[in-house]
Amino acid sequence: MMNDTLQQLSVTLRRTVDDSYPIFIGDGLFSRLGSLLRDRGLPKRVALVSDTSVFALHGPALRDALAAAGFAVAVEAVFPAGEEHKTRETKAWIEDRLLETKLGRDTWVAALGGGVVGDMAGYTAATYLRGIPFVQFPTTLLAMVDSSVGGKTGLDTPHGKNLIGAFWQPRAVIADLRMLATLPPVQVQAGLAEVIKHAVIADPEFFDYLQAVWPQVARLDPAVMGKIVHRNCAIKAGVVEKDERESDLRKILNFGHTLGHALETAADYRLLHGTCVAIGMRYEAELAAALGLLAASDVKRIQALLDQAGFPAVDDVEVSAAQLVELTKSDKKARGGHVEYVFPKQIGAMAQGERGYGIRVGDEQALPLLERIRGR
Amino acid sequence: MMNDTLQQLSVTLRRTVDDSYPIFIGDGLFSRLGSLLRDRGLPKRVALVSDTSVFALHGPALRDALAAAGFAVAVEAVFPAGEEHKTRETKAWIEDRLLETKLGRDTWVAALGGGVVGDMAGYTAATYLRGIPFVQFPTTLLAMVDSSVGGKTGLDTPHGKNLIGAFWQPRAVIADLRMLATLPPVQVQAGLAEVIKHAVIADPEFFDYLQAVWPQVARLDPAVMGKIVHRNCAIKAGVVEKDERESDLRKILNFGHTLGHALETAADYRLLHGTCVAIGMRYEAELAAALGLLAASDVKRIQALLDQAGFPAVDDVEVSAAQLVELTKSDKKARGGHVEYVFPKQIGAMAQGERGYGIRVGDEQALPLLERIRGR
Repeated sequence: MMNDTLQQLSVTLRRTVDDSYPIFIGDGLFSRLGSLLRDRGLPKRVALVSDTSVFALHGPALRDALAAAGFAVAVEAVFPAGEEHKTRETKAWIEDRLLETKLGRDTWVAALGGGVVGDMAGYTAATYLRGIPFVQFPTTLLAMVDSSVGGKTGLDTPHGKNLIGAFWQPRAVIADLRMLATLPPVQVQAGLAEVIKHAVIADPEFFDYLQAVWPQVARLDPAVMGKIVHRNCAIKAGVVEKDERESDLRKILNFGHTLGHALETAADYRLLHGTCVAIGMRYEAELAAALGLLAASDVKRIQALLDQAGFPAVDDVEVSAAQLVELTKSDKKARGGHVEYVFPKQIGAMAQGERGYGIRVGDEQALPLLERIRGR
Repeated sequence: MMNDTLQQLSVTLRRTVDDSYPIFIGDGLFSRLGSLLRDRGLPKRVALVSDTSVFALHGPALRDALAAAGFAVAVEAVFPAGEEHKTRETKAWIEDRLLETKLGRDTWVAALGGGVVGDMAGYTAATYLRGIPFVQFPTTLLAMVDSSVGGKTGLDTPHGKNLIGAFWQPRAVIADLRMLATLPPVQVQAGLAEVIKHAVIADPEFFDYLQAVWPQVARLDPAVMGKIVHRNCAIKAGVVEKDERESDLRKILNFGHTLGHALETAADYRLLHGTCVAIGMRYEAELAAALGLLAASDVKRIQALLDQAGFPAVDDVEVSAAQLVELTKSDKKARGGHVEYVFPKQIGAMAQGERGYGIRVGDEQALPLLERIRGR
């Protein structure tokens, strides 16, 4: 034995990283890409990544706008629309399109689409030649208010959603409200679930505002939608800025998601994510009240706003309450068999337990309540 | 047009990141993993990733050592040995092994093997649940002196090597010199190419030391090998610390690699990377002299040390000089059709041109020289 020969060396990699980026929100932003993207350190060549549905509507316009702004679209990688294409195979296909075109590090990725495109394009950018810049052009309300802030990218595997991926921040987000006009109403509604969630977890005035302006929201009034997107990004950015990697504070963004994800899985993704989150918020608000954390009057106000947005009162998924509770345990966020929820203590503020924002709930508490609400 | 509605919001993500980590070098380190890995913030569960050749030799010993140190090896993901398995398919297979075992963020990856294992295990760790910790247990000299420092991880595609990947730093590197005893001599030699490279680019005393101790190197004397690994890691760490992402300084690590990579490609990976780099250094040293950057006496000393290490004087690859020069242009580092080299100005110091360390060389300079040296 020569244990006495032990030598130690330290690789010192302490540095300041600045991944800050601007989100631009407005109506008709494609015509001013040159000024919006200036000073973002972007090279000249662009790989435009989109899905077939979005590309048909907005692809040529973005291609022309990029050209007018002085960028060269070297390749267009357009994959079939749908969450079922958020796979390793799609990532490899996009990468091969870029590699065939011999694109080097002097390239950035333009992600034109909703959450799936943002995830796939962002994750591809994160790992292409070990990382190249990307810019998001979100085309859905959900992508504008939620997935464009936080830097989460990734893909689904048969074992679950978003299990493989990277944290990779965009150099800029261009949220052109004009995109919302081409969105199916059900997709607008899906985005509103996250909007309401952000109001509940962090901003009581914004909650009041949403109640007041609902008629304008329903007809996608650009001024109101601009304000909503802006306020939402600000709320989420506030959380993410304090806690870029997932630890405690960021958990509050999961309100409605513990039961929401369970519903989504139980429905085999037949229901939209936003619908599941909305119903998840209804159940979790009731659970918060049952645990003595949230006043009944606040539950009522949350339910009323979700009613206004047209979300169903209960799910119609063919599973028992026991099966639903069981599904919450396969969640990434389940720790050692315990299911963690986050709960509002009032509209605009979240409750903290002894472990921080994550609050463990036993089956004996969740089960009877869910059986009562769902009637099965 | 409602361009006047433009709103801007900034997501501020400025933070200090500390990715520093220790490299432990010694003979018989497995018996003290408990103390070496303490305070590294590692969770209890481990996924042990290795290849079939290395696992057969050292897998059970590491498994036992991890258990003795209080860690639980939850899964062993052992893939077939060889660079041809550094693929997307292998990464997906490793991920699926971890996912099947339902491993969460309370898991770290132990990479037991050479460069291919380090790359695959590191890249998998970088993207599993968007990133979990990993520790490298390098088993080859090349992995100890080169790939364990720098945080580069990745995989090969049919379009080229290391084109997809991530920068992901290990939490620690455990370089147990005992591993070298089981290494085929040709693999030891391959590692020595990078050792000599590090001496040439940064440390004249170390170059002298290598000449002096060569007999001990040849019989893998633990004290000498320990000193060599330590000095090498220190040289590479010095470069990487100043320049973690690839920009200028880090280029000096590419000495011998521009023509080396071209040879590797021309030989269709029949030649070891280390052999190609060694011959690449011979050619690039001659090129440096021809360009008036390096004294003929220094070229002679470099050639002599490479002779001592048993590297061939010229390659035996069946390509013309013109084809070889052409292949340097498909290098990741070729910028806009221009091929960039780095050259020593003396043993232990690199030349800087008007663009920094990267120096452009035209075909009319490289071609006649290569034809003369290679005799074809």
